[in-house]
Amino acid sequence: MNNFTFYNLVKILFGKGTISKTGTEIPQGAKILLTYGGGSIFKNGVYDQVKESVKDFEVLEFGGIEPNPHYETLMKAVEIAKNEKIDFLLSVGGGSVLDGTKFIAAAVYHQGNDPWDILANRAPVEKALPIGAVLTLPATGSEMNGGAVITRVEIQEKLVFGSDLVMPKFSVLDPEVIFSLPDRQVANGIVDAFVHVTEQYLTYPVNSPIQDRFAESIMQTLIEEGPKVLANRTDYDSAANFMWSATMALNGLIGVGVPQDWATHMIGHELTAFHGIDHGRTLCIVLPGIMKVFADQKKEKIIQLGERVFKVQGRTDEQKIENTISAVVYFFESVGVPTRLPEYGVPAETIDRICARFEKRGYKIGEKANIGPKEIRMILEDRL
Amino acid sequence: MNNFTFYNLVKILFGKGTISKTGTEIPQGAKILLTYGGGSIFKNGVYDQVKESVKDFEVLEFGGIEPNPHYETLMKAVEIAKNEKIDFLLSVGGGSVLDGTKFIAAAVYHQGNDPWDILANRAPVEKALPIGAVLTLPATGSEMNGGAVITRVEIQEKLVFGSDLVMPKFSVLDPEVIFSLPDRQVANGIVDAFVHVTEQYLTYPVNSPIQDRFAESIMQTLIEEGPKVLANRTDYDSAANFMWSATMALNGLIGVGVPQDWATHMIGHELTAFHGIDHGRTLCIVLPGIMKVFADQKKEKIIQLGERVFKVQGRTDEQKIENTISAVVYFFESVGVPTRLPEYGVPAETIDRICARFEKRGYKIGEKANIGPKEIRMILEDRL
Repeated sequence: MNNFTFYNLVKILFGKGTISKTGTEIPQGAKILLTYGGGSIFKNGVYDQVKESVKDFEVLEFGGIEPNPHYETLMKAVEIAKNEKIDFLLSVGGGSVLDGTKFIAAAVYHQGNDPWDILANRAPVEKALPIGAVLTLPATGSEMNGGAVITRVEIQEKLVFGSDLVMPKFSVLDPEVIFSLPDRQVANGIVDAFVHVTEQYLTYPVNSPIQDRFAESIMQTLIEEGPKVLANRTDYDSAANFMWSATMALNGLIGVGVPQDWATHMIGHELTAFHGIDHGRTLCIVLPGIMKVFADQKKEKIIQLGERVFKVQGRTDEQKIENTISAVVYFFESVGVPTRLPEYGVPAETIDRICARFEKRGYKIGEKANIGPKEIRMILEDRL
Repeated sequence: MNNFTFYNLVKILFGKGTISKTGTEIPQGAKILLTYGGGSIFKNGVYDQVKESVKDFEVLEFGGIEPNPHYETLMKAVEIAKNEKIDFLLSVGGGSVLDGTKFIAAAVYHQGNDPWDILANRAPVEKALPIGAVLTLPATGSEMNGGAVITRVEIQEKLVFGSDLVMPKFSVLDPEVIFSLPDRQVANGIVDAFVHVTEQYLTYPVNSPIQDRFAESIMQTLIEEGPKVLANRTDYDSAANFMWSATMALNGLIGVGVPQDWATHMIGHELTAFHGIDHGRTLCIVLPGIMKVFADQKKEKIIQLGERVFKVQGRTDEQKIENTISAVVYFFESVGVPTRLPEYGVPAETIDRICARFEKRGYKIGEKANIGPKEIRMILEDRL
């Protein structure tokens, strides 16, 4: 096991009826900016529950934060937060609304010319507005970490930043929000959480049995509970298990002291940037390609995944690896997520554009920093 | 899964060489009271590493905190902390030193006549001195929670209190501290951590696959890595895995949203109070008795433990339960911990004294609050 620091300050309020506690977690007298997305919160009753809970506060609202939240949109909220002297940001939505809210929180205090520097040039976050979250969609894990992914539309860039200062002070996780989600969003959440686990697990062994088994526990639970949620949207127990799995998949815990990959995400972000494909779906395209092209480097952990989680068998290591990759693909497809580029209408030329981008950036990705343009081409050509 | 709140503010610094970072986690200019136990820190080099790290601070020292820390001893430290206007408590030791330090932290600000009220009458903790911890013995999990157990010698009482305010601000976990531990302390740590897990697991099912699998992950790791640590004290990887298991066993995570028992601890505390038996050892005496007497109530989870962790088989449920209890006893004895009262020289009359105490207290214990004096007698008589 490698050395590590673990520090997670998020207070989790989990369960039926917890949305009504939102207001009690916010400092008295705070002026709140309530952020939200496309308006589903007005249909599923979440907005009404939140408003009732914060009725003693002055609340301004900022809606319309997109999936893959846009820098351009968020900067409008930054202006409002500054002009209105907002004290507290309350994110009511899924991971995109919360990621966007994290960027707003940091950008409000950004000292330089352009808060885009936080993303493009890793300008340090020295202060941020406090954030609370009411989660409406289990998927990204953003509710229990300090990371965010932001898209700048005009230059088709999707970039990441992270800071302990933008960890939510609290996150309200009421599994009943899942009852009204469409299949596609549930499926995206299942596969997104699953690939968060593989990014911290499918690397190489460092003798870390707790982290490995926790990771396997989450994947196994997603495989069992995900289809139940898809089949019966009002099965509270399955919804709760799915929601808690998604949070545990990316709160830092399973990633302590172990190598991490994240190449699937980095390549997937480009597919979203160029073609607007849902984030979770891009991961299902890329991961099988990475497993195939880097089968040798990831051999031990791919076989461990296969044997422990998917119960695959095989006479040789090669067979076990092949069967594990097939099992992962089957799992993604069984929840309704296609795994090949043509199924999303992505032409082969996009591979050239993505490789050119990594060529220009100059750095390599993956747990051994050995995935560059050449390897990315192999990975994506495997997915044609 | 039941509703829950999870909130854990402890920053963990884990790994080789991390003791040297202790000073960087303490607010500049703080006046520190360094608390410790019987003096092993002077022999294993931990004291020197800590002192070097805090050399820019004013540091007073308070040693001699006993295993099962004594209220009487701790009150002397409370006087020092008040008179010397201490700003920060730095616990350098195992769970007993840290538990004692948590009590000091709370007692310094206690407003009533006698800080014993915090334990005996659950007087609320409204303020506490900040604590940092350098852990020298993996076992109690105290390094990542807000609980503590304190003994008052004059009345032979061992009682518990808990508050978020006494959670360490940081805990330094360097697995190399294990290299110089005697067998007995390692074994006590292994079984203590194991029973922390069973207290949160061996109850009844509430459909909580993540919590169940995490609990099983910790138990399985303790079963595999514990004996390796005993066999080779300088095996760093096994030491690290054991240390992280002990922390994860009682940081709140596996206990969220599930019923909890704690009867093994409550009864075990009495054996320590009356006979001074090491805490971990008392748990190994009591747990098999509880599993036997409450086999029916705990049936599903005992069988799940047996099948998933110990790979036991059996044609009937009764056989599986019996085999699981045997496997637990075998595990305790295999690390050198006896599991029957006579092996510790405890006479049958002690059972009367313990039952009389629970009779007087009036409340019942266990996950269904159905363990009273009668049941405690059955449990302990099974262990004769």
